This record gives sequence, C-alpha cells and structure tokens, in this order.
Amino acid sequence: MKTFYILHGANLNLLGKREPDIYGAVSFEDFLQVLQAQFADIAQIHYFQSNHEGALIDKLQEVGFQADGIVLNAGGYSHTSVALRDAISAIITPVVEVHISNIYAREEFRHTSLLSAVCKGTLTGLGLHGYTFALQYLHLHHKLLTA
Amino acid sequence: MKTFYILHGANLNLLGKREPDIYGAVSFEDFLQVLQAQFADIAQIHYFQSNHEGALIDKLQEVGFQADGIVLNAGGYSHTSVALRDAISAIITPVVEVHISNIYAREEFRHTSLLSAVCKGTLTGLGLHGYTFALQYLHLHHKLLTA
Amino acid sequence: MKTFYILHGANLNLLGKREPDIYGAVSFEDFLQVLQAQFADIAQIHYFQSNHEGALIDKLQEVGFQADGIVLNAGGYSHTSVALRDAISAIITPVVEVHISNIYAREEFRHTSLLSAVCKGTLTGLGLHGYTFALQYLHLHHKLLTA
Amino acid sequence: MKTFYILHGANLNLLGKREPDIYGAVSFEDFLQVLQAQFADIAQIHYFQSNHEGALIDKLQEVGFQADGIVLNAGGYSHTSVALRDAISAIITPVVEVHISNIYAREEFRHTSLLSAVCKGTLTGLGLHGYTFALQYLHLHHKLLTA
Amino acid sequence: MKTFYILHGANLNLLGKREPDIYGAVSFEDFLQVLQAQFADIAQIHYFQSNHEGALIDKLQEVGFQADGIVLNAGGYSHTSVALRDAISAIITPVVEVHISNIYAREEFRHTSLLSAVCKGTLTGLGLHGYTFALQYLHLHHKLLTA
Amino acid sequence: MKTFYILHGANLNLLGKREPDIYGAVSFEDFLQVLQAQFADIAQIHYFQSNHEGALIDKLQEVGFQADGIVLNAGGYSHTSVALRDAISAIITPVVEVHISNIYAREEFRHTSLLSAVCKGTLTGLGLHGYTFALQYLHLHHKLLTA
Amino acid sequence: MKTFYILHGANLNLLGKREPDIYGAVSFEDFLQVLQAQFADIAQIHYFQSNHEGALIDKLQEVGFQADGIVLNAGGYSHTSVALRDAISAIITPVVEVHISNIYAREEFRHTSLLSAVCKGTLTGLGLHGYTFALQYLHLHHKLLTA
Amino acid sequence: MKTFYILHGANLNLLGKREPDIYGAVSFEDFLQVLQAQFADIAQIHYFQSNHEGALIDKLQEVGFQADGIVLNAGGYSHTSVALRDAISAIITPVVEVHISNIYAREEFRHTSLLSAVCKGTLTGLGLHGYTFALQYLHLHHKLLTA
Amino acid sequence: MKTFYILHGANLNLLGKREPDIYGAVSFEDFLQVLQAQFADIAQIHYFQSNHEGALIDKLQEVGFQADGIVLNAGGYSHTSVALRDAISAIITPVVEVHISNIYAREEFRHTSLLSAVCKGTLTGLGLHGYTFALQYLHLHHKLLTA
Amino acid sequence: MKTFYILHGANLNLLGKREPDIYGAVSFEDFLQVLQAQFADIAQIHYFQSNHEGALIDKLQEVGFQADGIVLNAGGYSHTSVALRDAISAIITPVVEVHISNIYAREEFRHTSLLSAVCKGTLTGLGLHGYTFALQYLHLHHKLLTA
Amino acid sequence: MKTFYILHGANLNLLGKREPDIYGAVSFEDFLQVLQAQFADIAQIHYFQSNHEGALIDKLQEVGFQADGIVLNAGGYSHTSVALRDAISAIITPVVEVHISNIYAREEFRHTSLLSAVCKGTLTGLGLHGYTFALQYLHLHHKLLTA
Amino acid sequence: MKTFYILHGANLNLLGKREPDIYGAVSFEDFLQVLQAQFADIAQIHYFQSNHEGALIDKLQEVGFQADGIVLNAGGYSHTSVALRDAISAIITPVVEVHISNIYAREEFRHTSLLSAVCKGTLTGLGLHGYTFALQYLHLHHKLLTA
Repeated sequence: MKTFYILHGANLNLLGKREPDIYGAVSFEDFLQVLQAQFADIAQIHYFQSNHEGALIDKLQEVGFQADGIVLNAGGYSHTSVALRDAISAIITPVVEVHISNIYAREEFRHTSLLSAVCKGTLTGLGLHGYTFALQYLHLHHKLLTA
Repeated sequence: MKTFYILHGANLNLLGKREPDIYGAVSFEDFLQVLQAQFADIAQIHYFQSNHEGALIDKLQEVGFQADGIVLNAGGYSHTSVALRDAISAIITPVVEVHISNIYAREEFRHTSLLSAVCKGTLTGLGLHGYTFALQYLHLHHKLLTA
Repeated sequence: MKTFYILHGANLNLLGKREPDIYGAVSFEDFLQVLQAQFADIAQIHYFQSNHEGALIDKLQEVGFQADGIVLNAGGYSHTSVALRDAISAIITPVVEVHISNIYAREEFRHTSLLSAVCKGTLTGLGLHGYTFALQYLHLHHKLLTA
Repeated sequence: MKTFYILHGANLNLLGKREPDIYGAVSFEDFLQVLQAQFADIAQIHYFQSNHEGALIDKLQEVGFQADGIVLNAGGYSHTSVALRDAISAIITPVVEVHISNIYAREEFRHTSLLSAVCKGTLTGLGLHGYTFALQYLHLHHKLLTA
Repeated sequence: MKTFYILHGANLNLLGKREPDIYGAVSFEDFLQVLQAQFADIAQIHYFQSNHEGALIDKLQEVGFQADGIVLNAGGYSHTSVALRDAISAIITPVVEVHISNIYAREEFRHTSLLSAVCKGTLTGLGLHGYTFALQYLHLHHKLLTA
Repeated sequence: MKTFYILHGANLNLLGKREPDIYGAVSFEDFLQVLQAQFADIAQIHYFQSNHEGALIDKLQEVGFQADGIVLNAGGYSHTSVALRDAISAIITPVVEVHISNIYAREEFRHTSLLSAVCKGTLTGLGLHGYTFALQYLHLHHKLLTA
Repeated sequence: MKTFYILHGANLNLLGKREPDIYGAVSFEDFLQVLQAQFADIAQIHYFQSNHEGALIDKLQEVGFQADGIVLNAGGYSHTSVALRDAISAIITPVVEVHISNIYAREEFRHTSLLSAVCKGTLTGLGLHGYTFALQYLHLHHKLLTA
Repeated sequence: MKTFYILHGANLNLLGKREPDIYGAVSFEDFLQVLQAQFADIAQIHYFQSNHEGALIDKLQEVGFQADGIVLNAGGYSHTSVALRDAISAIITPVVEVHISNIYAREEFRHTSLLSAVCKGTLTGLGLHGYTFALQYLHLHHKLLTA
Repeated sequence: MKTFYILHGANLNLLGKREPDIYGAVSFEDFLQVLQAQFADIAQIHYFQSNHEGALIDKLQEVGFQADGIVLNAGGYSHTSVALRDAISAIITPVVEVHISNIYAREEFRHTSLLSAVCKGTLTGLGLHGYTFALQYLHLHHKLLTA
Repeated sequence: MKTFYILHGANLNLLGKREPDIYGAVSFEDFLQVLQAQFADIAQIHYFQSNHEGALIDKLQEVGFQADGIVLNAGGYSHTSVALRDAISAIITPVVEVHISNIYAREEFRHTSLLSAVCKGTLTGLGLHGYTFALQYLHLHHKLLTA
Repeated sequence: MKTFYILHGANLNLLGKREPDIYGAVSFEDFLQVLQAQFADIAQIHYFQSNHEGALIDKLQEVGFQADGIVLNAGGYSHTSVALRDAISAIITPVVEVHISNIYAREEFRHTSLLSAVCKGTLTGLGLHGYTFALQYLHLHHKLLTA
Repeated sequence: MKTFYILHGANLNLLGKREPDIYGAVSFEDFLQVLQAQFADIAQIHYFQSNHEGALIDKLQEVGFQADGIVLNAGGYSHTSVALRDAISAIITPVVEVHISNIYAREEFRHTSLLSAVCKGTLTGLGLHGYTFALQYLHLHHKLLTA
C-alpha cells in the first residue's frame, strides 16, 4: 500500500463554485471520493488544500520525505513562486504537476510555471482526468523505482 | 443596510507609523472611525488587515459571496500575486482597488498591479480619500444593480 | 467659489455615441449639467474638449496658473504624449486623471499612462463617477492647502 | 451614388516633391483627378489632407457616420497614434489603410501600424495603385453590405 | 499574354472548410475560376498549393525566372520562414503577398510577416478581393516595366 | 470501435536510438504494440511519423475530419511551427499534445510550444506513459461528447 | 544676408516660467533679442513656437524649401513624433536639434529623440548657448555649401 | 548588550538536509549555537524561521522597531517579494541580507533580489560565514551609530 | 578512404545564379568537382541539396550513423529550425557548419544560428573556401579520433 | 588665462586617415593648431589621445581637479565604459562630450553614450565645429561660475 | 603565513576624495594599514590598484597561481568586463568580490556584476568592512582547504 | 613573401594552462612554431598577445596599413569592445576572427561578437586548426587581390 498526496493551492477550494465554464461544476471533494475508490487497492490518497503559499511549503516538507508521490496543482502560485519551486527541489518524494484548464490558451502570465522544471512531469488542460493520470504515473513510476 | 469590507494587505497596519512622507501620519484605525460614522446610515464597514497573502485570499473567499462590496489595498502583493487576482475573479462581490500613494511616480515595479484588470476600478494617489470614494462607488454601484 | 476645469482629449466628444458597451450611453454634456448642479455651491465647473493634443496643452497652460483644479481625461493621448505630461509638470494647478473604462482590462498599450506620474492621482474604471470623485478630491485638497 | 473620402496625414501634401525615390514624382492632386474620373459613375471622392493629428480625428468623426467608405494614409501618425486608432473604432464607416511605400522594407519603427487592427484591411507598397484598389474594395464591400 | 502564379501555403487548401468565420465559406477552386475568367484576355493564371515549405520554395524557384508575376499567400509560413524569404529574394519575378484575414487583429505572432520586406507589396484583410487586386497590380506593374 | 492516430514529428523515428538518457532506450514501434494490445477492445491505433512539417500537416488534414482523436508529439516543430498550429485549429478531431521529456527542464527555446494553446491538453515529462494517458483521455472525452 | 528659423515645440513658450531649476529663469523672448543682435550682420532670425505637432510640421514645410537653416527644439515631441521626423527628411533646409537641459540625465523616455538621426547634429545640455552654437554651425555650414 | 535577530525564509529549515552539495550538511540549529557562543559577550541572538512570507513580515514588524540588527535570508522570497521589501523599508532596525550559496552562479531568476536595494548590504556565496560577518557588521554599525 | 557529405539547405541550389554580389558567380556543382579532385586521395565527397527541411533531416539521419563527417550549410533553416538542431544532436557523425557570406554583416535575424551550438564548429564569411577548410577539419578530426 | 584639455579616445588618432567619408580628411593635429590660435587670448589648450580606456581615466583624474574644462570624445568607449563614466563623476572639472559624426544615424549600438548623463552637455554630428563650440561653452560656463 | 592580494579597479585610487557621500572620506591607503596590522599574524596583504582593465588581468594572472586569496573590487569594470571574468575563471587562487556601496540601490546598470558568478562570493554595501570580512573568509576558506 | 599577424587578446597567454578541457593543453607558443614552419615558404607570421584592449588597438593600427593579413582572437573583448571593432573598420589589412572553443555552446553572453560584422570571416570551435585555416584564407584572399 502506497501513500499519495494531492496538494491544492490558492482558490482550488472553490472548484465547482468558481468560474464553472473554465473549471467545471464538480466540487473536488466529490471527485476525490471517486479517485479514492478507484485507487483503493493501490494507495491511500490524502488531500490538502490551502490558500497560503507557506502552508503548501510546510506540507511539501512534512510529507516529502515519506510519501510515495505528490500531485500538485498550486493554482496561481505556479506562476510566481520560487519558494514553492525550492521546496519541490528540496524534498525526495516525486511531484507531478496538474493544471485543470489549458493554461496556454489563457492570459500570457499563465503560460509559464516556475514549478514545471523541478517536477517529474506536467499535465495541462485534461480537466479532472489530469489527477487520475498523475496518480497512475506515480504508481507506475514507483513500481519502476522499487523493482 | 449594506455590508462593505475594507481589506488591507502587507504593511498597511503600519499606516501612520511607516514612511509618513509617503503614506501620511494618520493611523488607519482612526480614519476608519471617521469612515464608519460617515457611512453609518448606508452600510456597515468591516475592516481586515493581514500581512499574509493567503489570509487575504481566505477573507476574499469568506466574504466574497455575501458582502455588497470590497475595497482592497493589497500593498506589495498588488504587484506580484496571481493568486489574489484569481480570488477576485472567483468571487461575486465587486472589488474596488485603492492605492494611497501615486504608485506611478515611484519605482518601476510598482507601476503594474496584477489586480486592476479584475477589479471594477482603481483609485491611486488620492490618499485616504481613495477609500471614501471607493465606498461611495460601491454604494452607487449597488443601487444600480438592485434598482 | 473655486474654479475647476474638466479637460477632455481625443474622441471623448463622442461619449454616448461611441462604443456604448465600453463608455456608456450618456452624453457628457448631459452629465456635466448634473455635475455643475451638484457642485453649484462650491465651484464653477468649466468644460473643454478637443481632439488636438496641442489644443489640450494650450488649455492646460491657459488655465493652469489660475484655476483651482483640473480633471483630465486625455483619451488616447494618455498613452503616447510626453508633451502633455510636460504641460502638466509645467503648470501649478493640481491635475487629477480620470479614465471611464478599466484600461487595465483592455489592450496592452492602454495599460500605461504617461500622465499618471505627474498627476495628483488617477481614477480608473469607475465610469462617470470618476469625475465626481475627482472634483471632490480637488475640493478637499484645496481646503487642505488653503487651511 | 456613394460618397468616399481619402484622408491623408502628415507630409503627404508633399507627394511628388518629397523623397521622389520613395514616394514617386506624381503630386496627389494630379492622381486624384484620374481617380475621380475613374470612379465617376460610382462615387464622389472627397479629399482631405492635414499635418494635424487632431484635424484627422475631427474629419474622421465628421464623415464617419455618413460616408460610405474612407481610405486612410495617416503617414507618420500610423505608427504612433492611439487617438487616431480610437477614432476609427468609434465611427461606423469602414476604413481601409494604404501605405504607398513598402513600410516593411524601411526603418524598424515603420513596421508597426497602430491603425491596422481596427481598419478593414491594409494595402502596402503598391504605390498609388493602393488607393484605386482600396476604393474598389469599399465599393464591393458596400454592395455586399447593402445587398 | 502574361503568365501569373498564385501560390498557397499551409492549410489554404481548406479554404471554405476551415474556420469559415475567419476565412469565408467559398472554396478557393471556385473563386479561381472566376478569377481566370476575369483575367482571360490578359493572362494565364496558374495555381499551386502545398503544405510543404520546401515545395513552395521549389515552385518559387521553378517559375520565378520566367513567370510575369506571383501572388503568394504562404499561410502560417509567412511568420516563420527565412527560407521562403530567401527564395523570394533569389528569384526575378515580382511577388505580391496576400493575407485574406486581417492578421493585425489576430494573435501577436501573426502581426509580423518575414516575407513582406522582400515582396513588392502586401494586401491584408480584404478577403478574396486581395487576390484580384494583387493580379491587377502585377498586370499594371508589368506594363510599366515593359513600356 | 474508435479510430485514434499517433502522429510523430521530426527525429522521433530515432526513439531508442537517439540520446537514450533523455528519451529512453525503447523503440516506439515496440511500445506501439503494447499500446495497441492495451486498447484493442476500444480503438484502432494508427501510427504516422515524418520528419517533414508539411507531411504532418497533410496527415492532420487527412484524418482530422474523421478520426476520433489524435495524439501529437511534433518534436522540434512544436516550438517553431505556426503552420502546424493552424492545421490543428482547422480540423475537427480533438488533438492532445505529448512530450516525452520534461521540456521545461531543458533549453530555454524548448519551454514554449506554439501548439499547446490549440490542443485539448498537454502531457509533458511522463515518458512513454504520456501516450497511454493521452489515449485514455481521448477515449473518455469521446464518451462525454457522444453520451 | 541669410534667413534662419528657430522652431520651438510644446511648452517651450513657458521658458523662464516653467521648472526654472531645469530650464533657467530667462524667457526665450528676451534671449532671442540678444541672439538677433549678435547675428545682425549675418542673418535674419525668425522665431516660431507652437504646442501643436501639426503646426510645427506646417512650419517646417513652409520654410524648409527656402530658409538657410532651422534650429529645432521640439520639446516633448522629440521623443514621440515620427511625423516630425518625416517632415525634416522631406525638406531641404538643414535642421539642427537643440535641447536646453541634459536629457540623458533625466527620465528614461527622454534619452531617445526620434529626430536626431535626420538632423545635421544635436546639441544637448548647454542651456541657451545651444541655440547660439546651432546658428553658428548653420552659418559656417552654409558658407561651406555655397563656397 | 545588544539584541540581534536572524530571520530565515522558505525552506531554510531544511539546511543540512536539503541539497547538501549547494547548502552544506550542517543544520542551522547546530551552527546557531556556535554563533551564539561567539557573540555571547556582545549580543543576544534570536532565531526565527518560517516558510510563510506573511510570518516573515509580521516578525520584521514586531522586532523592527526595537532590535539592534536583523540578518535576513529570505530564501526564494528574496527574488519575488515586494511585500517583504516594503516591510524592510517600513522598519527602523538595519537589515543585512545573506545568501549561503552564490546565487549569481545559479539559475537566471536567482540573480536578482528585490530586497538588496533596501538592506544595508548583502553577503552572497560565503556559506555560513555570511551570518557571522553580517552580525559583526551590525555590531560595528551599531557602535558607529551610537558613538 | 573516408566518406564525407556536403548537405545544402534552402536556395543553395541557386548558387552562381542567386544574388551573385553576396554569394559569388560560381555554381556549386563546378566547385564540387574541384573539391572532389582535391580530396581524391583522402575521401569520397557526396553532395545533397534540398529545399525541404524534412529532407535534410532524413538525410542527416540516413548518413549520420555511418559517414565520417558532414559539412552543413542549411541556408535560411539555420536561423529557425529546432528540428534540424535536434537531428544533429541525435546522430553520431560530426557536423561542421558553413556560411558562405558573413551573416553577421547582414540582417539581424541572420546573426543567430540555432545549429551552431550542436555542430563541432562554424565557418562564416570565407566564401567557398569555408567548405574546403571544413572538410580538412573533418579529415584532421577523424585522424585524431581514430589514432 | 584658463587651462582646457581635449581628450580623445580609441582610434581618434586616425582622424584624416580613417573612413574619411564619415570623419573628414583633416588630421586633428592640423585642426588643433587652428583651435589653439583661435583661443590664444583665453586659454591654453592641451591635447591627449589614447587607445587605452585606462589611460583616459588616468588623464581625467590627473587634470580633473585643476583644469578649467575638458572636452571629451571617447570614441568607441563612449558606448561601453562605466569606468570612464565613473571617472567623470569623480572629478571636479566640467566635461563636455563631443561626437564628430551623427551617431544617431549610424548603428544601433552607437545611439547610447554611457557618458552623456554625467557630462555637462553633448554635441553630436557637427564635425570638428563641435570642439570649437564645446570650448566656447566651457569658457562661458567658467565666467559664470567665477563671476 | 599566507599571502593575500587586494586588487582595485578603476577610480578606486580616489577613495576619500571621490563622492565621499557614497564612498566615505577615508583613503584606502590609511585603511590598508589598519587591515595589515589586524592580519599581521596571519597573512601578508599586498595591494594593487589600476585604472587599466588589462593591468588588472595581468595582475590576476601573475598572482593567481601562487597567492592564497584575492579580494577584488573592480569598480566600473565589474559591470562590463568579460575579459576580467575570464581571468578569474582561468586562475586557481580563490577570488572574493567586494563593493563598498550598495550597488543595488544605485543606477540600473550597476545591479549586475559579470564577475560574481565566477568569484567565491560577493560582499556589497558594507563599506570598508567588506574587505575585512573578505579576508577573514579567505583565511577560513584556506584553513578548510588545507585541513 | 607576405607578412601575417596573429593577435591575441585577454587571457590567451594562458593557453595550455587555463581550463584545458575547453581550450586544450597545448601552449600557443609551441603551436606557433608549427604554424611558422608550415607557412615558411609563403609568409612571415608575427605574434602579439596582450591583456590590454588598448594595446590590441595600438597594434591593429600599427600593422593594419602594411601587413597582408591579420588573424584576431580577441578573447573576452570580442563580446564587449566597440573600440576594437572601430579599429578593424579603420584599417586596410583584412582581418579574420578565430575562436578556439565553440562559443555558441557556452554562456549566452559569448554568443555575440561585436567584431564579426567587420571581419572578413569567422572560424569558431575548430580548436587550433582555426588559425591554420584563417592563414590559408588570407593567403588565398591575397592572391585573389593581387592577381
């Protein structure tokens, strides 16, 4: 049994409520239950959301030396935070980055994520499916590493 | 009776104490009492200040679906925070941006606010009067919407 | 009794006629009458519009050593005119800048006003209310200076 | 019978006299007579030239709500005038932009016209033929619109 | 009798099928027949389309030393191809550039054509009329050269 | 039964042979067989590779009005080709972009893909798993559309 | 006897009145009399000032085919006017550019004059002496040309 | 006896644990004891670390009007935080900036610290010695100020 | 006996015909015979030219795992092709880049070759001699490698 | 009697020999004799030329605390030398900058002089007359200072 | 006994004389005696100053293979000299960079030192104390290396 | 018998000693003897190295009107020296530029040489062979000129 974390940054607690034409009308809590059921045999999936950049860094440090994988959607902090990038570099657990919407089809300042270079990979624009695939990748990746 | 919020970002708790040649020598608490008296018949004015970007986002989310208007001076975060911008986009309550000093007459990096594009409007360089006008605008704006 | 001027640059004579979804459907002449009535006890409000950058400079120089305050919306010249900026610097009367629409939510080249740094302050995106507040500010500002 | 305007900006009154290796040796007045004869059955062609940015805006506003088409060569103002661009956006009559010389083969600052995005189309480098084609387009375009 | 070529770059074979709100609903083959009829007394008009940058260069080289004129719409290659630009410089036949839509009113990266500086002229945003005018220009231009 | 295409651009025929430390040591042909087996019940997976930008555009046009989904890794063309971007916009079949390596951790010029904005989504840095997830997404996406 | 013109652009009518710490406390009219006396034997010196960019172009065109030399301080227009630059290129009379203050020691946007490249030369930061030297240069230059 | 503070920003709690090839293998707590012993006769040295930008601002405000000196290594926030910069400007206690690694030999975005301009000075690349020297400087600086 | 390839990109088939003032009046075929004679004892020299970027990549892949050296002049593709760069990186045979003219003395966009960083070296501006020296280098280089 | 220095930087020893179409065919030594005669009653004029940036700094320091004025044409160093700029700031003697040719009509990198901001003024494009005027200015300036 | 060098670039011989508000009123020679006394038991401290970039490179090469440490303040050359940077890379002795003033609080062009990336570390804004700390660091560093 | 010069700029006296992985382990003096032997029948080869930009300019001027050819590797000065560029323009002898390492595969600031545009040609990345080829080119070039 593996331990995975999904970490959500600023404003992602409003999923299902905020700009539904961009982010969809499903709350993440509901989707999470589906995910947890889907991965029930493989991994425990923990969820953490904060609007505080510092709280995300605290969490990354807390779980980043024991957990088997982290899926990170840092929201607006993706485009501005060197501190988050440093946290990802500093920990050992592999991190996969997810963006629900296609950030390349939106405002210029959303086209660059400071985090991508230090994550294993990035999934963009695939809606909530991005989280499923990211977890699958971490699962497969882990098998590879521990084979 | 309407409900308005004034939200203050980083270092604005030092008003009256910090660089008085730029920001004046009056504390915001004293000015707030004058404002509240002035708008007593129209609206309840709540005040919140934090040096934490995340706390400002939390507050915007908390009040941004019920309050009738928000006046926001995010201080230094105005120039760097995509996360705050996203919070303003995500909520329903109209937000008006205020800067006490004339940011266009100061350092280059203060000339751009990431928040302006998603606020209703911006008042810059009018000192504490900016808050009064912002509240008046929200009052008038509200009348328009509910007329 | 004070003397205030409202100066309008290029294309603002078309207010109420031009792009009503951006600028509203009220002509400025109608609005001016409301303004003049509102400030009748405090100040005489004069109005001048020109599509000529030079005529605006002529006017600023003509009134800028006697009037008590100037409200300036230079339209498209705001973004390109060093000559207008120099005129504002050269005169003594305080100038407040107004933009009816939220210029930060429009084309990139409208995000910068060469005039802002030499005006007392700037009001953006508040519609015609911006003019009312600008005059109120000049009125209050004047009381301060002559107290 | 339709009404078309040809509007000429700065220094275009010197055509035939100014830098003939770039602009040719024919005066525009002579060419205009040929044009007017050519379109005699279709439209009345009026001509206006000014070195004043403001006068061009005045003219665009004056004719831009009744005329059937405008051909505009704003000369040097093409590359710097937001105010002219706003005037074209503000009026109803369709505007076609013409440049006599190939501006893309000249100095860097001539490669960008602020006006192109709000005109129907742009003809560059075709010499005086550009005017003929622009008028033909307006003629055809009008037929389309009024069909 | 003259020989003119119309050369079409990437995706222009989809005209009438692709994004009809931008490019119109007429296929180029249909329009070509109208064009050929219109110029029947003056010139033979040949048509070539390819999605291959290299094939366009091959064609330019093949016809660029005998034909009397070339009308080129290189599609997306206009904005990125130094190799096409070099081919236009290398040949003798005059080339006129056409863009159906107004590229200045679209994405930033479409505002610059690497080809314009080495073509005789450019027609932008005039729809299919651009081709007619370009051919007329080449016809007139040729008369001038051979007079 | 659905029809999916995997399209590979420049140099991806060398997978398993080229820079194995970046791209891995497995040839794509071998991996394709695994993929086809995995999706045998759901879809037929066709594969096309070319080093020619034009051939990729030809293929996109050929299959882009009938196929149910396209997975595209355009290799080096991702960073430079407006023509490919236009082809993706012009067709109807949804396209998902894949990059095997983490392009954000490599040279600056690889950080931007001109294609991302017009694809449904992008998967980067997940190795060959990216293809599996992209196909899964197209499968799920299709169900959504045809539900 | 030669004929020289001194042309002054925006706000230079305020010399002696405007920002005396930058531009000095002498009015240009007083200084002009000294200049005219000094050059009495050599040339007639005419003076023209306007805040209108177009009026400066009109004047340059009017005198630029007969006068023996022009000294031009276009004020704020120096940094923004392609139209003025074109006028200088279009005329025959040599033009020398003068700036009273050291524009390189002031704001960034004053460091570039669009006019310098098409003037004979530029004198910057030498106060009113700049005009004297410019006239001397034109005098000497003329002797050279007519020798 | 003086009071000095060492303030640490994001991820510096991982010193000794995080990327030891860049930051060394000593934990800051161990090094702090050495420092405190070294300065025992001169000053009390307090230590505060937080991954929260806001908490660093709170702390700067709390101690910045009484303490005798602050040594600040803000980690990743150094490169992005206007709010921290404003806090340093707002307080009275002198601040010295330290970076353990040579930030100029690392990624481009680490080459600029927004904080340096408002600190007394900056020590970069000297490892943990930087802290010792910064405290010595504050000690010497204080003597100077109070002499 | 070694095997060397000379690969020529877009428009280089026109050597001797195209812009002779820049590229000389000798056809490459004639020069090739001289080269082949000169290196007859050392190496077989094959020649391949294409205007197709993809054909150049195909050829590089075809010969790049067996040949002893490649001399590449990619013409206009040098400045724009990431795909060609990737092909050079992917193969084993050493590649030397040649430009006949001095690209640094021509247009700005010719000053950068995307290929140089992954070639062994670059020879620019030496006319056809560049090919001779490149082959000599490959010959010497090979001796070194196989010594 | 005053003491003035003319300082010449790199390659100005070749005047009369180097690129006579840009710099004229007169050697500076010959011109210097004319200058010295012209100013014989007012000042002693010393001349120093070096191709060494350091030697120019040495000289500026040597004479910059006693001489009454310095005329500096630093040649190519004008555009690149912060060290020379610092030397001018460090000394007391006023410095006037001269460029013989019109640097604004030449290559882009010649349009900026790092020295201008710290010199009293700059004379550009007036040929050797620039030196005469610069000396006259220093003479007049000195009278002003010592009056 | 170790051997340390302090190397001073352009204009630093004027310390105590030049701009005392920025650099202080103490001459470096006086300060050097204090330094030498302070380090008398540990190291011999040699001093070299030159306004010549080349002389600094000569000196770095001369001492850079035997000395135990070099403290370098290159003055204005810090911001422009690739040649000095290369010299630091080429030698073996560790180099520490010192700037007396806070270069980040001055002109933009002083914010970047080309030398920092190849020095061990940089001390900025600490006045003459910077030299003391730099020497202490080299002393400690040396102990480390030879332990 | 011809006379050729090899001129070496900053730090090239350390060849064989400095960073041997980039520049090789052979001293230039040893290589020079080989070169001189190789060209013994054709030319006398003189060698000059200096770390002083000014000394290189002095030398270029000294030999640049008599020698038959110059091979120049200016080291770090290549990327920053307008003064050296001017010297090459000023002289008559043809200059060929050599870089031993592939500067395009190193730091960004090494990708641009200010000298290339005014040299005959440039050889980069070919190690010491670059000098041999440069001399051969000058020899062949000379024959051409004197034929």
